[in-house]
Amino acid sequence: MQLVDRLVAGDRRALARVITLVENGAPEARTALTLLFPRSGHAATIGVTGGAGTGKSTLVNQLAKEFRRRGKTVGIIAVDPSSPFTQGAILGDRVRMQDLASDHGIFIRSMATRGSLGGLAETTGDVLTVLDAAGRDVVMVETVGAGQDEVEVCRTTQTTIVITIPGSGDDIQAMKAGILEIADVLVVNKADREGADTLASQLNALLSLAPRAGWQVPVLQTVATEGRGITELAQAIEDHQAHLRTTGKLERDARDRVRYQLLTLARQELMQRILHEHGANGSLERLVEAVLARDIDPHTAARRLIESA
Amino acid sequence: MQLVDRLVAGDRRALARVITLVENGAPEARTALTLLFPRSGHAATIGVTGGAGTGKSTLVNQLAKEFRRRGKTVGIIAVDPSSPFTQGAILGDRVRMQDLASDHGIFIRSMATRGSLGGLAETTGDVLTVLDAAGRDVVMVETVGAGQDEVEVCRTTQTTIVITIPGSGDDIQAMKAGILEIADVLVVNKADREGADTLASQLNALLSLAPRAGWQVPVLQTVATEGRGITELAQAIEDHQAHLRTTGKLERDARDRVRYQLLTLARQELMQRILHEHGANGSLERLVEAVLARDIDPHTAARRLIESA
Repeated sequence: MQLVDRLVAGDRRALARVITLVENGAPEARTALTLLFPRSGHAATIGVTGGAGTGKSTLVNQLAKEFRRRGKTVGIIAVDPSSPFTQGAILGDRVRMQDLASDHGIFIRSMATRGSLGGLAETTGDVLTVLDAAGRDVVMVETVGAGQDEVEVCRTTQTTIVITIPGSGDDIQAMKAGILEIADVLVVNKADREGADTLASQLNALLSLAPRAGWQVPVLQTVATEGRGITELAQAIEDHQAHLRTTGKLERDARDRVRYQLLTLARQELMQRILHEHGANGSLERLVEAVLARDIDPHTAARRLIESA
Repeated sequence: MQLVDRLVAGDRRALARVITLVENGAPEARTALTLLFPRSGHAATIGVTGGAGTGKSTLVNQLAKEFRRRGKTVGIIAVDPSSPFTQGAILGDRVRMQDLASDHGIFIRSMATRGSLGGLAETTGDVLTVLDAAGRDVVMVETVGAGQDEVEVCRTTQTTIVITIPGSGDDIQAMKAGILEIADVLVVNKADREGADTLASQLNALLSLAPRAGWQVPVLQTVATEGRGITELAQAIEDHQAHLRTTGKLERDARDRVRYQLLTLARQELMQRILHEHGANGSLERLVEAVLARDIDPHTAARRLIESA
């Protein structure tokens, strides 16, 4: 596949084209992924998540520049839940890309959320494989918010950074949603605001309630707009990566990720088969009508759907 | 099934017991749901979602009391993403239940988040069916946050209320995550705080960008702790329900919900079959090792997993 050869040779346009194929679920994407997959597995993969307004994109840009200073090439996947209300996000993204575009060592790509039966995490995982196979030393995946989506996306990366800011009132409460458990490094960004030290202390206190074996989750303060604390953050990420390698956790985590990935891909594939077969022959709609008439309950209907597939 | 007979006769303990069976995925739950399903379909179902700290539980409690004043029986499903860090939530819940426990016309049940391959939305849907079949006039489903989970849970209800509060800084930005599109009624709670009017104006402005055919999403201000604005909110919910009925949207939405439910239940059932068969015969682990060795790519492995099932 010529496109894959060009990508492997370092052609950025070929890289962009393959990612587009993957995002669109194009048939050629499967071939490309099969060819690229054996070349992957070398990148350090980093998930960066935090609520809206935490300065996540600025922080990721600064980190990218810091990794460049350390002689590494960088890929960024910015997962951006799209909405009819947020055309602004795309504009912001263009501005952002211009900031980094002059350096070919940084490749940035935005991805929109797919339908809820679709697989944002799966697509992100595939794009990550492509960037990894393209030889990027570090790949960062950036996600908004702290819901199930983010947890799923973070399952695709080795090191997870969670960003908070002082004064948003519900920072600590937001930690309830399971996000603290997935953090390998915690960041208090906008640390020039009042309350940064208090928030950092609270986070450390929370962490001490459930210490993680072998790895002390650091709480770092940054001011991403001024580049403050970025060196320390990059170092914390490298420390965590070293910890993963020396303890064998890198391999164990990779095994867990692959198992999870196979199960979610299998689920996705099965759903597509069901939709395809039943959409075509109308048996889905007949079962829907039977449930609406309360002639059959949903669980029984779902089993019939599978068995007639 | 004696338990179901008792539930139908109004026995609260039987109701609680059936919900526990459903939550635990017990075999008897299937039988109970099959028997109860034909009795469901009469309740007005309401989803209430909002970030941590928005006063959601207080608002739902107040709404429950208001519906009681209007002569209706109420069921509440509080979906509570559990975390090792949040034992406090359970305590808070007990306090909360005491507040309402004296009135047998209100039944409240907390549910924890299941594993990510599990089906929180599916289980919530089943518990909703049970409460509906038990004759509750109104069933409210309360969820934290504004992620994919919440959107999925809101797909199970007829009317969706989204709660915001002034001064949390990222309210408007949080609206990006697709949550505004699912709101039938928007609430600015803690409206005695500074910035309530501004937030309400901003929300109205956002809504005007993408008007919804036939239904003007109201933006209401409440102070749930003092019961302010609750009558108006209950009225807005009843107005929305009347709108659904008179326009035929109630039936169309029900059809969409059932279609979605059948597909997600089928997906869940298929995943359980895959896990059961492959967990047992070890072929999942063999495929995981092959992917780790990069002998096979994940997509091909997932297809083998399905085909050998």
